[in-house]
Amino acid sequence: MFLINGEPSDNIAVTNRGLHYGDGVFETLALLEKQPLCWTDHYQRLYRGCDRLGIDCPHEEILLSDIDCLPIHNGPLVLKVIITRGTGGRGYQPPPRGTDPCRIMGIYPWPDYPETYSRVGIRSRFCDTRLSRNPTLAGIKHLNRLEQVIARNEWQNDEITEGLMLDTEDQLIESTMCNLFLIDGDKIKTPDLKTSGIEGIVRKHILDLASEVSLSPVILNIQKQEIFTADEVFLCNSIIGIWPISEVDGQMLKSGPKTDEIRQLLKKNQIIVE
Amino acid sequence: MFLINGEPSDNIAVTNRGLHYGDGVFETLALLEKQPLCWTDHYQRLYRGCDRLGIDCPHEEILLSDIDCLPIHNGPLVLKVIITRGTGGRGYQPPPRGTDPCRIMGIYPWPDYPETYSRVGIRSRFCDTRLSRNPTLAGIKHLNRLEQVIARNEWQNDEITEGLMLDTEDQLIESTMCNLFLIDGDKIKTPDLKTSGIEGIVRKHILDLASEVSLSPVILNIQKQEIFTADEVFLCNSIIGIWPISEVDGQMLKSGPKTDEIRQLLKKNQIIVE
Repeated sequence: MFLINGEPSDNIAVTNRGLHYGDGVFETLALLEKQPLCWTDHYQRLYRGCDRLGIDCPHEEILLSDIDCLPIHNGPLVLKVIITRGTGGRGYQPPPRGTDPCRIMGIYPWPDYPETYSRVGIRSRFCDTRLSRNPTLAGIKHLNRLEQVIARNEWQNDEITEGLMLDTEDQLIESTMCNLFLIDGDKIKTPDLKTSGIEGIVRKHILDLASEVSLSPVILNIQKQEIFTADEVFLCNSIIGIWPISEVDGQMLKSGPKTDEIRQLLKKNQIIVE
Repeated sequence: MFLINGEPSDNIAVTNRGLHYGDGVFETLALLEKQPLCWTDHYQRLYRGCDRLGIDCPHEEILLSDIDCLPIHNGPLVLKVIITRGTGGRGYQPPPRGTDPCRIMGIYPWPDYPETYSRVGIRSRFCDTRLSRNPTLAGIKHLNRLEQVIARNEWQNDEITEGLMLDTEDQLIESTMCNLFLIDGDKIKTPDLKTSGIEGIVRKHILDLASEVSLSPVILNIQKQEIFTADEVFLCNSIIGIWPISEVDGQMLKSGPKTDEIRQLLKKNQIIVE
């Protein structure tokens, strides 16, 4: 079920610049008991992304009124919000500021991941596909996602749940769809995203709440091999919540109690669903 | 006027992966007297791009039969061909190989650039926006074009026709929509595109035909300042043909006869329209 600029529709104009250039941004968020979780955070990232691309982000009230028109039930659902620069002619040059952007809202079923993913952990791999480094596009959730698509297409084996991605300078950044954390003693570390990666909403809340589980947050460059020496390693995003990583490329990782403490804390604060 | 999978339509499915991820490739080519110029080259690049992304490129005959259904007149027209991975659910993981890709054909009027652009040259600037370096995406004409969109949005002044782009390591790569050539003595130089940029069709033909105008083609890394010492500098693509660059950031460039010789040669070989 989709709403395009507030109207139910399954189609968009073929001249939409989202199609031609990936000229837009998106958010994927959890709806629980008809409420979007962390709405303000998601709206702020959408707004920052639009601002970086020079798109006039629709007002928050317009998006919230769109959400009110969606057929939502109480159980968890996935909401995807896409804002593109709207329609345009041929050529990269954007239409003048003030031209109406296009807003697209889609509702998807809540994914039924095995419960073991959250409780025990997932098996993962290092992807061969690298993330580009470019401060112009780093951090925001724009629609140019071919690197993630190609990386996710590297494996078809269902036993591997996620792939970790390095940038072109061998820095560990994130997984195809999640942010990454390493716990080392009393430190909780996550990669610096100034040149690659998406600044996740759950990531932000973990950094903000870390002291409540007696951890000091650190944002820094992380190398591939640090995964194997960390006390605990986990992934997070707004839909999956938290998944410990139990194995990378066939090598077992350590596990511990802090990851579960963080999950409980995020649930208590209504950052994640489960 | 658009054809979607062979049927006239102005809309595509909102679930098209071209919209969600820029998951596809495109070509922009000249139609003259109802014939697509350099069709085989364009089809081969489309095929190579699809192959890199793991998309099953539609057969050449299918695309040619689509073109036959377009309302084409004798004068020059612009044809845009987009191939996306088709529709899909939420998530980066591509649907299995064999799932139908989506083919989109659009006809646009021939642009009426001032004749002085080809004869005298254009004024240009260096863009602040950099091109990412990533061999996975370099060379092919994929739909992730935000860097070009942001770069083209840097200036609104009509007196500047094109913007030159460096990659994140200060290598000169191309302009927002053209490949770049420098003539230096008996050499004709163009940037190496192994990590950034699009391998243009006109670029390929210039490299192939250079010896006919007594120039030796060289593909190499080029620095920003080399623009100012070259004997002649020009841009090329399938629609504009050849534009000498007469000025960059207010500084005049040298001009000479070779650029015009190359244009005549390309016209004679039906590589460009004018």
